[in-house]
Amino acid sequence: MKLVRHGAAGQERPGLIDAEGRLRDLSGIVPDIAGTALLPESLDRLKAIDPATLPLVEGNPRIGACVGSVGKLVCVGLNYSDHAAESGLPVPSEPVLFMKATSSIVGPNDDVEIPRGSKKTDWEVELGIVIGKPAKYVSEEDALSHVAGYCVINDVSEREFQIERGGQWDKGKGCDTFGPMGPWLVTSDEISDPQDLHMWLEVDGKRFQDGSTRTMIFGVAHLVSYISQFMSLQPGDVISTGTPPGVGLGQKPPLYLTPGQTMRLGIQGLGEQRQTTVQG
Amino acid sequence: MKLVRHGAAGQERPGLIDAEGRLRDLSGIVPDIAGTALLPESLDRLKAIDPATLPLVEGNPRIGACVGSVGKLVCVGLNYSDHAAESGLPVPSEPVLFMKATSSIVGPNDDVEIPRGSKKTDWEVELGIVIGKPAKYVSEEDALSHVAGYCVINDVSEREFQIERGGQWDKGKGCDTFGPMGPWLVTSDEISDPQDLHMWLEVDGKRFQDGSTRTMIFGVAHLVSYISQFMSLQPGDVISTGTPPGVGLGQKPPLYLTPGQTMRLGIQGLGEQRQTTVQG
Repeated sequence: MKLVRHGAAGQERPGLIDAEGRLRDLSGIVPDIAGTALLPESLDRLKAIDPATLPLVEGNPRIGACVGSVGKLVCVGLNYSDHAAESGLPVPSEPVLFMKATSSIVGPNDDVEIPRGSKKTDWEVELGIVIGKPAKYVSEEDALSHVAGYCVINDVSEREFQIERGGQWDKGKGCDTFGPMGPWLVTSDEISDPQDLHMWLEVDGKRFQDGSTRTMIFGVAHLVSYISQFMSLQPGDVISTGTPPGVGLGQKPPLYLTPGQTMRLGIQGLGEQRQTTVQG
Repeated sequence: MKLVRHGAAGQERPGLIDAEGRLRDLSGIVPDIAGTALLPESLDRLKAIDPATLPLVEGNPRIGACVGSVGKLVCVGLNYSDHAAESGLPVPSEPVLFMKATSSIVGPNDDVEIPRGSKKTDWEVELGIVIGKPAKYVSEEDALSHVAGYCVINDVSEREFQIERGGQWDKGKGCDTFGPMGPWLVTSDEISDPQDLHMWLEVDGKRFQDGSTRTMIFGVAHLVSYISQFMSLQPGDVISTGTPPGVGLGQKPPLYLTPGQTMRLGIQGLGEQRQTTVQG
């Protein structure tokens, strides 16, 4: 099942993509793609609906972030060995965690703002894990049962703010519009192996990232279990699992975004995003 | 005005403390002490109410965190020069920012869980700033007009998770129950100078922290302005502004919390908290 949120920013309505790729409205069924609507029993109810009985959404509405009211957006750093190398940092012995402000979350095709004073705004295609069942001290064996599904995230990052402005990464990770998420929340039953998904990112038509979740250091089940040892996870929380090589920081010389550029990115089975950069 | 949230966890109702120190219910007026209820015009409407017309709350209910549905909890590290020294770290040249998971937020007198595997759970009394008006790229001169009020926060921290487990502090800051907040949100009109508030913390009756917001390196107006350059702030967001000396990490030898202890802490004009530590 491919769940979406459609409509103006802040007023998104729930929907799904049917087998013919058409957008159908779920407003009569659930209030939002968020929180308790992501519990396993809630998703089972949605899966039991014949999409043909749902109203078609007319026109070509804006698509919002695929999860509403995200409680927290926990991110994993340096989770692809080649990306750690291009960043000049050692491969971590356990997951590096940081957080993106939830106010950074936008739709998959919304503009991305270059913050005032920024010289080093960068891209990162990442696999997002959407939590569907509360998780606290869960084992790796049990971890995947807490996952509602997956999505594409662009973990947009300002490298000077992140690395050169006082020591903690969060400062360069949570700027407004730095968290495009979606287009779809694809439920986990449709992703046979989250560790075998092709992922890519292009800037102005040039491919910079071309990788696979196969080369993650710490996989999905390990990450959900690991993070749940440090903080509980709730339905609608999202984990962004790190990026493969090819970010701007890793180019020789480094290369960063300027206003008026276009990023396109996608992950196999999870859809594509397209953002234009604008001055903040 | 002293705003409170009373009732069982997850079901708190809004209230205020009247001039006689009695708890009165605001459920008929606002849905929660949260989000848009903190906008200046909303607070003005609350201030215009004669508290005597509000129902008294009977009994001795639990007090919840003084702000509901916190969007993000942005924290400032090493913001008292003496605390930087006791942590063995240099005084920062600009604010160090990190984030606490909002799932860590609890009431001021709720139990604090020592996480499984923790050996270094520590305390930090901090002044909390509650945002009341959206703030993005605001000047230091304008910053205080975006503040709804202030509260006490215990920025409970696991030092091994924070410092020795992979490089970013968030891992040791966002554990469940690590964010006691309240008892009151005291509106800013009642705090004549946020940079002159006595603050203290005791463990099992022994005073470990005894400081003042006077010795902050970066004051309230600077912090609100500074953070708004990196991410927008929304009503109901909270900033925790750092701790004065006297944390467990700074003792010689270091001293950490064990189950069954009692923390008491307070800030002048903002009330007191009292937590019992339990095994998580």
